Amino acid sequence: MLYLVGLGLGDAQDITVKGLEVVKRCRRVYLEAYTSILTVGKGALEEFYGRELILADRETVEQEADNILKDADVCDVAFLVVGDPFGATTHSDLVLRAVKLGIPYRVIHNASIMSAVGCCGLQLYNFGETVSIVFWTDAWKPESFFDKIQKNKQNGMHTLCLLDAVTVRCLKSCQRKKQVKKFDKYIKVKEQSLENLMKGRKIYELPRYMSVNQAAEQLLAIVQNRRLQGEEPEITENALCVGLARVGAMDQKIVSGTLQQMSTVELGGPLHSMIIAGNMHPLEIDMLKLFAVDESSFQDYECQRNT
Amino acid sequence: MLYLVGLGLGDAQDITVKGLEVVKRCRRVYLEAYTSILTVGKGALEEFYGRELILADRETVEQEADNILKDADVCDVAFLVVGDPFGATTHSDLVLRAVKLGIPYRVIHNASIMSAVGCCGLQLYNFGETVSIVFWTDAWKPESFFDKIQKNKQNGMHTLCLLDAVTVRCLKSCQRKKQVKKFDKYIKVKEQSLENLMKGRKIYELPRYMSVNQAAEQLLAIVQNRRLQGEEPEITENALCVGLARVGAMDQKIVSGTLQQMSTVELGGPLHSMIIAGNMHPLEIDMLKLFAVDESSFQDYECQRNT
Repeated sequence: MLYLVGLGLGDAQDITVKGLEVVKRCRRVYLEAYTSILTVGKGALEEFYGRELILADRETVEQEADNILKDADVCDVAFLVVGDPFGATTHSDLVLRAVKLGIPYRVIHNASIMSAVGCCGLQLYNFGETVSIVFWTDAWKPESFFDKIQKNKQNGMHTLCLLDAVTVRCLKSCQRKKQVKKFDKYIKVKEQSLENLMKGRKIYELPRYMSVNQAAEQLLAIVQNRRLQGEEPEITENALCVGLARVGAMDQKIVSGTLQQMSTVELGGPLHSMIIAGNMHPLEIDMLKLFAVDESSFQDYECQRNT
Repeated sequence: MLYLVGLGLGDAQDITVKGLEVVKRCRRVYLEAYTSILTVGKGALEEFYGRELILADRETVEQEADNILKDADVCDVAFLVVGDPFGATTHSDLVLRAVKLGIPYRVIHNASIMSAVGCCGLQLYNFGETVSIVFWTDAWKPESFFDKIQKNKQNGMHTLCLLDAVTVRCLKSCQRKKQVKKFDKYIKVKEQSLENLMKGRKIYELPRYMSVNQAAEQLLAIVQNRRLQGEEPEITENALCVGLARVGAMDQKIVSGTLQQMSTVELGGPLHSMIIAGNMHPLEIDMLKLFAVDESSFQDYECQRNT
């Protein structure tokens, strides 16, 4: 049996009791390399689980899936994933390979950033399409996520923005197929530079995580671009946003305020996420006020409430 | 400290290690009554946790929140919630009351149906607004969720449909404020009949859970209604759907097929959810085929893939 086990979002103890039992029991236990985004490293997990973990980076997952699945028809193998195995990252690939090889699989679910962001008080019901904000490069400054945020806003919906590391893969896939891009919205940890990738060198860049500040700055730049193009965008400096850092960890941080304020808030280490609020229910406003940089940002919404 | 602890979706062992420690340590432990939607009951949870649980039904949560929060400034109190504390159900109310009383709170996240549905292979990124499908009554046959599904479909997005029990509360709130309705999309377990509610009698109906069959039948009825009105809807009998039952439990069931097929699939006991697929990536199609009632339903999508 192949077990895909979600580790949740915080530290070693965020695994479920069921998940922990699976880990203790399996013949081999793989740890998805993206796991460095947990607040603890491989060593701490190994100590807590009492098991040696085999690090499986993206290459392993994609090119060596057959090694992971070896003998999984006669013994149990666990594949550990930060968050939920089918949350922000997809592991369909591994599941499809397992099924093809006649290996049964089971998913042990856990918290995903896709639903844990509800802790800021905005209702998950009221979220539209999730977007990924990627690091801009000199040559590549996509704005498509801005249009999606605007569309959600026009429909009254909130937008969850997952903040990414700019990726060569993503650049490449954009040149290939639009559809492929959608599956490239991983949280990337291990990346090759464009130059190294083009030369086929397996040299990876240090991981870079986008902060809420950087995401806000890129959005503010797009607002300016749109104005230069003679368009007054729906999303402006005053758009109400929520910045979230290390959701689920002991030192998680949540702040709410305008997009302008998001460009200067101090949220500390990764991972960060941002939400652009749509229409809000009074209870949602009350919750966001708990995290306000400055309560006056909510004046407009208070006026709406009283009319 | 007030701890809001997610229990996940399956059985007692789906609590996280961190959550279990909190439960063992707290002075009082409340169990949200909706918990009967876990595959196990209060007794099994008490045995596994080694703690007595105080059942907190909706009335308790809404009207007796102060009892729950009593002394939580000097001792630890846990409030256990199926899924994630900020998933499909909202507990903002309790948090806001705690903060007002100067009581700190912490959230222990867990799997929510809102993200666990990703296990069918459809990417959470590609979901639009979530809808609730409520039981129709003779007097009340809302179709608004159909329009939301169509809107998502037009945008290429999937729609998660949470299947509800028809509720008097919802009927009432619809007459009040549209906004309030949004917060009434709980999974309801304990309901009063309209007659009893109007007479102020606290007599509750037996809980009713909508099956995928029933949801599909209501959607098919709306398709017919629209045709009678001279409109050919975007969503028809052939719309590709996924039916999910008891996600996260040992006996979970997932099927994919047309809306017509969903009206006859046999998924067993609650809780059920349904997804109406939007545009699909080849990997998403491959995953859904694992659960196909009949692979020929995917012919149209295969054609799209090959063009």
